[in-house]
Amino acid sequence: MNEATGAPFEAPALLKGQHLADEVADQLESMLSAGNYDGVKSLLEPVQPVDIAEAIGRLPLILQALAFRLLAKNEAIEVYEYLDPGVQQSLLDRLRSGEVLEIVEQMSPDDRVRLFDELPAKVVRRLLAELSPEERRVTAQMLGYQAETAGRLMTNECIDLKEFHSAAQALTIVRRQAPFTETIYSLYVTDRERHLTGILSLRDLVTADPEALIGDVMTKDVVNVRTDTDQEEVARAIQRYDFLALPVVDSEKRLVGIVTVDDVIDVIEQEATRDLYAAGAVQAGDEDDYFQSNLFVVARRRVVWLFVLVLANGLTTKVIAMNDEVLKQVVLLAAFIPLLIGTGGNVGAQSSTVVIRGLSTQRIQNLGLLRAVIREAIAGALLGLLMLCFVVPFAWWQGQGPLVGAAVGISLLAITTLAATAGAALPLLFDRMGLDPALMSAPFITTATDVAGVFIYLRTASWLLHHINTL
Amino acid sequence: MNEATGAPFEAPALLKGQHLADEVADQLESMLSAGNYDGVKSLLEPVQPVDIAEAIGRLPLILQALAFRLLAKNEAIEVYEYLDPGVQQSLLDRLRSGEVLEIVEQMSPDDRVRLFDELPAKVVRRLLAELSPEERRVTAQMLGYQAETAGRLMTNECIDLKEFHSAAQALTIVRRQAPFTETIYSLYVTDRERHLTGILSLRDLVTADPEALIGDVMTKDVVNVRTDTDQEEVARAIQRYDFLALPVVDSEKRLVGIVTVDDVIDVIEQEATRDLYAAGAVQAGDEDDYFQSNLFVVARRRVVWLFVLVLANGLTTKVIAMNDEVLKQVVLLAAFIPLLIGTGGNVGAQSSTVVIRGLSTQRIQNLGLLRAVIREAIAGALLGLLMLCFVVPFAWWQGQGPLVGAAVGISLLAITTLAATAGAALPLLFDRMGLDPALMSAPFITTATDVAGVFIYLRTASWLLHHINTL
Repeated sequence: MNEATGAPFEAPALLKGQHLADEVADQLESMLSAGNYDGVKSLLEPVQPVDIAEAIGRLPLILQALAFRLLAKNEAIEVYEYLDPGVQQSLLDRLRSGEVLEIVEQMSPDDRVRLFDELPAKVVRRLLAELSPEERRVTAQMLGYQAETAGRLMTNECIDLKEFHSAAQALTIVRRQAPFTETIYSLYVTDRERHLTGILSLRDLVTADPEALIGDVMTKDVVNVRTDTDQEEVARAIQRYDFLALPVVDSEKRLVGIVTVDDVIDVIEQEATRDLYAAGAVQAGDEDDYFQSNLFVVARRRVVWLFVLVLANGLTTKVIAMNDEVLKQVVLLAAFIPLLIGTGGNVGAQSSTVVIRGLSTQRIQNLGLLRAVIREAIAGALLGLLMLCFVVPFAWWQGQGPLVGAAVGISLLAITTLAATAGAALPLLFDRMGLDPALMSAPFITTATDVAGVFIYLRTASWLLHHINTL
Repeated sequence: MNEATGAPFEAPALLKGQHLADEVADQLESMLSAGNYDGVKSLLEPVQPVDIAEAIGRLPLILQALAFRLLAKNEAIEVYEYLDPGVQQSLLDRLRSGEVLEIVEQMSPDDRVRLFDELPAKVVRRLLAELSPEERRVTAQMLGYQAETAGRLMTNECIDLKEFHSAAQALTIVRRQAPFTETIYSLYVTDRERHLTGILSLRDLVTADPEALIGDVMTKDVVNVRTDTDQEEVARAIQRYDFLALPVVDSEKRLVGIVTVDDVIDVIEQEATRDLYAAGAVQAGDEDDYFQSNLFVVARRRVVWLFVLVLANGLTTKVIAMNDEVLKQVVLLAAFIPLLIGTGGNVGAQSSTVVIRGLSTQRIQNLGLLRAVIREAIAGALLGLLMLCFVVPFAWWQGQGPLVGAAVGISLLAITTLAATAGAALPLLFDRMGLDPALMSAPFITTATDVAGVFIYLRTASWLLHHINTL
């Protein structure tokens, strides 16, 4: 977390972070090429680490290491943590091994683990072996937790106090440990076995009587998560309670680390991207580097869902081919197939969108699942009725007679109701089955709606054609 | 921001906040019905305000005010701020006007403004008139800012220091003002005219030499936003720099308030919901109460886009009807129309999804816009080629001859390339024009793909039928 708070520019520049980084990168490049190293130092001095990282990322490869070496040591670590994984790796190759070791040793454990995830196993083994015993232990432990759990997200750098400390003593400890911890605003109280017994904020500590004992000032009942808690649940908890940090305990309730709010913002954004990609039939990977990844990776991430959807469409083709008799008699019926299945698809997508989002933000549970499905079904019927008023006259006119109009009208109502019901029910069903509804729903809803829709439409038209002579 | 950090339960319960609220609500209801008010107090004492608010929201209307009155005064304010707007309003009706006034007076200005947004104008005028002059001034000012700007999101409750204060003096001020401010972790330095001249964190202050002057300890160049900065830009800035809070200044650079990270998390989630709803053709409103709103509101939010999409589909119908000659000759061609436009729609949605998300997270700018479109076009062609290998043999077999296979193959390739190009280019175009790409893109991409796709398909088939005698 960035608990220092300065930076050298005004809102308009800030809010166009990209442009700022471009500008800084341009100036940086010309100064470096001209050997004006003092100029570089005074250029970068007031710039935020994240902006420096982005500017360095845009430099030609040979200048990156040069620029990086000109940073003050403690700033270099912070800038390194913000670099893209690719730039981090190429810097590792270009710096001397002593420099590399110093950076890796001093990184926050959570950032170090993220870096190690990207590096070749051989390099990780070598770097791990060269870390100090304490950092090695922490890093190896964190690498052992599953991806996307609290154990991977957390940092072990937090301040823990004892119940017998006075507030004044505690404040001294906070002052002493401040340089080495991620946050000093959430303070943790542990017993001799490092079991978490309480929590207090720096706010509590600063406003407490200096003589008061921590054991009396702290809050005893602590919201906490376990190392194996899913990162999305960690994020929801911090968001729900407006916390700045959340303690992470192991299976024996010993404090092992904390997750801070800044990491959680990234998790929330990542999960939102995943849901959006799923809605757009794009397989989510490491979303951060989507625009860096090559075209074959891009195609691979999309072709799977496309094939599933093509198979679904193939079923629709079969249904139409099996009912081609009626099409032969009234070829204009074919002109309305796109409209009907398009509308079905849209109504289904609307229902599944609100239901999937409701599941993600945990708001749908307030309503009750069965009621949600019934509501959507009624909404679908209502929407179908509204559209009938416009679509049926159009179909009557375009289809040159009442047959097409009647067939389109009847099947439109059936399709919208069915699509809304399937759109609401299938995500809930997948959620119950432990599958990701955002990922699974679209192809099934599309298939059900298309196949059933075309079937209903052509059968209705065929029945009308044979039984109602007046049409 | 919740800078106190306690709560009375373990992870499993916490992470099922909904279930916890259910449980608490059940116990609460039976205790209230039995008149066991001491029981209620000890039941609620260790529960977090947000959970109490949710439990109260589930009580029958007549018990809500009763439960609310049993809360300690300072807790009542916090719980009230977390209540749903509907519950807030019904409580206002049921509490005595003295109680109402006390709550409204003591709410955080940002929460108060959010409440006033929901209340009838008459009630707001009465409540405003009864506020203390200072709170009235602040609230009226904030109500004057446009919705979804920093001015609406901020709170004016922040600590400002002067450059001539010593660190020790500043710490005394922080201690004294702590009970009345949203955060004490970000401290602001202003001159006599309240111009923002610097910033420092409580971390800086706690670790500074007590004799040091604030003017020497503070960071002079401050990242800040203006009252009219869009809330999404505020959120991106806090996310980018990992800040806990960001100062808001007026047009003369005077400090008027701060935006804190907890509010920003909600903004990020709200913007993600908006993008998702747009992708699902659902008009976003106040997403929070979607599952509370009635069916006609639901239908109204969806029917607009449905009509737009039906109009688009109507164009497709026209194109098919105008080319019905070839369908009369080979009716099985109709069976592949859903597959072709379905695939076009899916490829287009994939491209627009990654481009729209890239615009939101500001990652696409790194690549360059033209290169992004070209990349997507190539990806579309690649995906079309991959699908050809399976779809053409199927079409040949199902279409009982090479004509349908050839027509499907040629148009599939054209459609996927076109869809990917339109899917990438249109969102970028809308973004340039200052329109919301998430909202605008889908109908245009669908229309372009469907109409052009069907046209290409039927014209190709017709050409093949007339010019290649062997087919």
